[in-house]
Amino acid sequence: MYYSQHLSCICMPHAVLLQPKRSWSSSHSNAGKRLGHCTQVPRNVNLEKLRSGYLFPEISKRESEHMQKNPHASLLRLGIGDTTEPIPDIITLAMVEHVRGLSTILGYRGYGAEQGNMALRKAIAEKLYQDMGIKADEIFVSDGAQCDISRLQMLLGPNVTVAVQDPSFPAYIDSSVIVGRAGELEEETGKYENIIYMNCGPENNFFPDLSTTPRTDIIFFCSPNNPTGHAASRQQLKQLVAFAKANGSIIIYDSAYAAYITDESPKSIFEIPGAKEVAIEISSFSKFAGFTGVRLGWSVVPKELLYSNGFPVIKDFNRIVCTCFNGASNIAQAGGLACLSTDGYQALRNVIDYYMENANIIVDAFSSLGSNVYGGTNAPYIWAHFPGLSSWNVFSEILEKTNIVTVPGRGFGPGGEQYIRVSSFGQRERIIEASRRIKKFLR
Amino acid sequence: MYYSQHLSCICMPHAVLLQPKRSWSSSHSNAGKRLGHCTQVPRNVNLEKLRSGYLFPEISKRESEHMQKNPHASLLRLGIGDTTEPIPDIITLAMVEHVRGLSTILGYRGYGAEQGNMALRKAIAEKLYQDMGIKADEIFVSDGAQCDISRLQMLLGPNVTVAVQDPSFPAYIDSSVIVGRAGELEEETGKYENIIYMNCGPENNFFPDLSTTPRTDIIFFCSPNNPTGHAASRQQLKQLVAFAKANGSIIIYDSAYAAYITDESPKSIFEIPGAKEVAIEISSFSKFAGFTGVRLGWSVVPKELLYSNGFPVIKDFNRIVCTCFNGASNIAQAGGLACLSTDGYQALRNVIDYYMENANIIVDAFSSLGSNVYGGTNAPYIWAHFPGLSSWNVFSEILEKTNIVTVPGRGFGPGGEQYIRVSSFGQRERIIEASRRIKKFLR
Repeated sequence: MYYSQHLSCICMPHAVLLQPKRSWSSSHSNAGKRLGHCTQVPRNVNLEKLRSGYLFPEISKRESEHMQKNPHASLLRLGIGDTTEPIPDIITLAMVEHVRGLSTILGYRGYGAEQGNMALRKAIAEKLYQDMGIKADEIFVSDGAQCDISRLQMLLGPNVTVAVQDPSFPAYIDSSVIVGRAGELEEETGKYENIIYMNCGPENNFFPDLSTTPRTDIIFFCSPNNPTGHAASRQQLKQLVAFAKANGSIIIYDSAYAAYITDESPKSIFEIPGAKEVAIEISSFSKFAGFTGVRLGWSVVPKELLYSNGFPVIKDFNRIVCTCFNGASNIAQAGGLACLSTDGYQALRNVIDYYMENANIIVDAFSSLGSNVYGGTNAPYIWAHFPGLSSWNVFSEILEKTNIVTVPGRGFGPGGEQYIRVSSFGQRERIIEASRRIKKFLR
Repeated sequence: MYYSQHLSCICMPHAVLLQPKRSWSSSHSNAGKRLGHCTQVPRNVNLEKLRSGYLFPEISKRESEHMQKNPHASLLRLGIGDTTEPIPDIITLAMVEHVRGLSTILGYRGYGAEQGNMALRKAIAEKLYQDMGIKADEIFVSDGAQCDISRLQMLLGPNVTVAVQDPSFPAYIDSSVIVGRAGELEEETGKYENIIYMNCGPENNFFPDLSTTPRTDIIFFCSPNNPTGHAASRQQLKQLVAFAKANGSIIIYDSAYAAYITDESPKSIFEIPGAKEVAIEISSFSKFAGFTGVRLGWSVVPKELLYSNGFPVIKDFNRIVCTCFNGASNIAQAGGLACLSTDGYQALRNVIDYYMENANIIVDAFSSLGSNVYGGTNAPYIWAHFPGLSSWNVFSEILEKTNIVTVPGRGFGPGGEQYIRVSSFGQRERIIEASRRIKKFLR
């Protein structure tokens, strides 16, 4: 996944001289080796600000290094949250039928609407936003939540302020940096200047202290949370909506794991009255339907959501979707429609239940070590606390002792230090084996 | 395709008072009707600058209006360049097999590499960039060229200057405006401030006069060109590469229609020696394989392409792909691989030949009117000249007299005035019928 660092790099020495502080070349051993053509196009300063490695490629690299040292190790990957169970037949059959049709005059389909097929938009509105007053034309089908995050960033542009939960899924911050909202990364705190980090941990029931949170234009909020696994309660979300309304903020609410909620926690921000005036929701079929590789998601942009000048956000988002996107694959959309049929939905519930049984097994294993363990009841992630320890050290220790890949909490922001995230996606026997190794080797 | 304009809009009157000049509400009849909550988030000024309608939705709207007035008209759509012929069986069978596998333990696939499956990257490098020295890891598989254009815009950021062919595919300019490179739209000229328009017409053999073209950081160049249908000659592309090298510019070369080239014109910018130091190429399976709805494309970012400080562009693009994208659908990628097999490729050549026979028929029809007709030999687009006439008027006249939808050249920039673009994608009998109507009703 990680693009090789070993590029044949050739730089003009004057670049080193001209840009001694910021230049990539200045710290690079190849500088001055062989002269090559450099364009006169400046590197985007926003990309220069990004910390060097994206989290998952970095983990992937460490995993490879581990395997080089231990070529016979039986690795168990509970790191990246990647679905493992086959997609129910009823859903793949719908996709097969669609694909077969593409070879026929009657079944062939070219460009669809950039916003998605209306049948799918309707099904999402009816099945997942029942009684919330969300209309089909407020739903924009996408190729996944991560992709929509970056389209939303293009929509909002560089001149808005932003708050994120800490810890949180890295794409919110990284894409905010890319569009130019952040200052420098402060090495000491691990935080970017100009971005507000809202700490969420057990001490505040994983919900930020809004009384001390500064106003920002945008608030990224993920529930059930990745990585902590916490699903915000109705009371917490009411506070969040009231806070956004009082501050004139827009919440970008990520509900990609909503299908994993087992208690009464809201599955959508739009269950909260008034949310349509303050929130956009992004979501995905990835974890709900095992579509991580098939690629399908959606965003909800209510018509009631207005910029400060009264202009509807939905109109600009529609423009972004038409200009920067060309619709999700029509095959994936055919599958998405089948996911929302009565039988498809039930089949997916069974898969989700399976993953949640896995989660129970992992929670038990870490609990038996005496760790404080969070998550795993409303989300497929377990968030295990190792007080006083560095999360990368815990990650390495677990990898070395058990050959299990996890994710160091620090990768989700400074608030994730002392934690690791464990994914419950996996085949049962591998989860049981992971549990055995955790209990045996980490005591 | 076009999001309805009839949104229930409610604005706070103070917004009108506070922003009398720029506010959308100030010119809106609903202002002051009913008070609703406005956030305090400012609308992105870059989106405010965009002209109101994206071209294809605007055409779609006019088409709908025409059909409301003429409900029984037999409409022939030769407007938007959308493929119509079934995808050859050999390609859909590969996708069917992949989809079936997703319901099995062995065949299930979750996240793939963000950059695309290596087998597909290799096949693209070997089949389409043979003898050009492009390596598999310089190829990034995407969900289409239009999507990659916007990712390239995020990569390069707002602080670069840009030149585009005039006329050109609207996404280059629109996405440049969205990321913040343009000044205001000058109503008189129809051009954005700070964007260089390189006129391309029959007077300069559809190639810009580089001796009078100012230096820019980025040069968007599309060949075979959409809309003019002109494929740049080897000599022209050598000039372009030399120009970019002398100026330290980066060419973003769009080869989405390369498969339609029938003469000796280069099918890739990388056929030109030295191009790897100055160019990125974007391309697509959309028109090559009828994948407009399946969604698959790629970009080539050579390792030799360096920013002014010597940093390789490919490293930043890789970061953009990992942060803002999550890979193309694995089903589409399975299809893409089949497209590049010997038999798949041959089957696609037959489809392309079919469309090019359509192009001949349309060229003949417009030529018989005495029009000067361009394109149609190396591209599926015909570019017909109506000297002295407004292209929207020609569009309307053709629609009214023949019930044929075309595209007014003006939609591709000021340089497209007096032209219309006609697509040759269509079933043969419809193309023949279009030809008949053109000859009969437009004389």
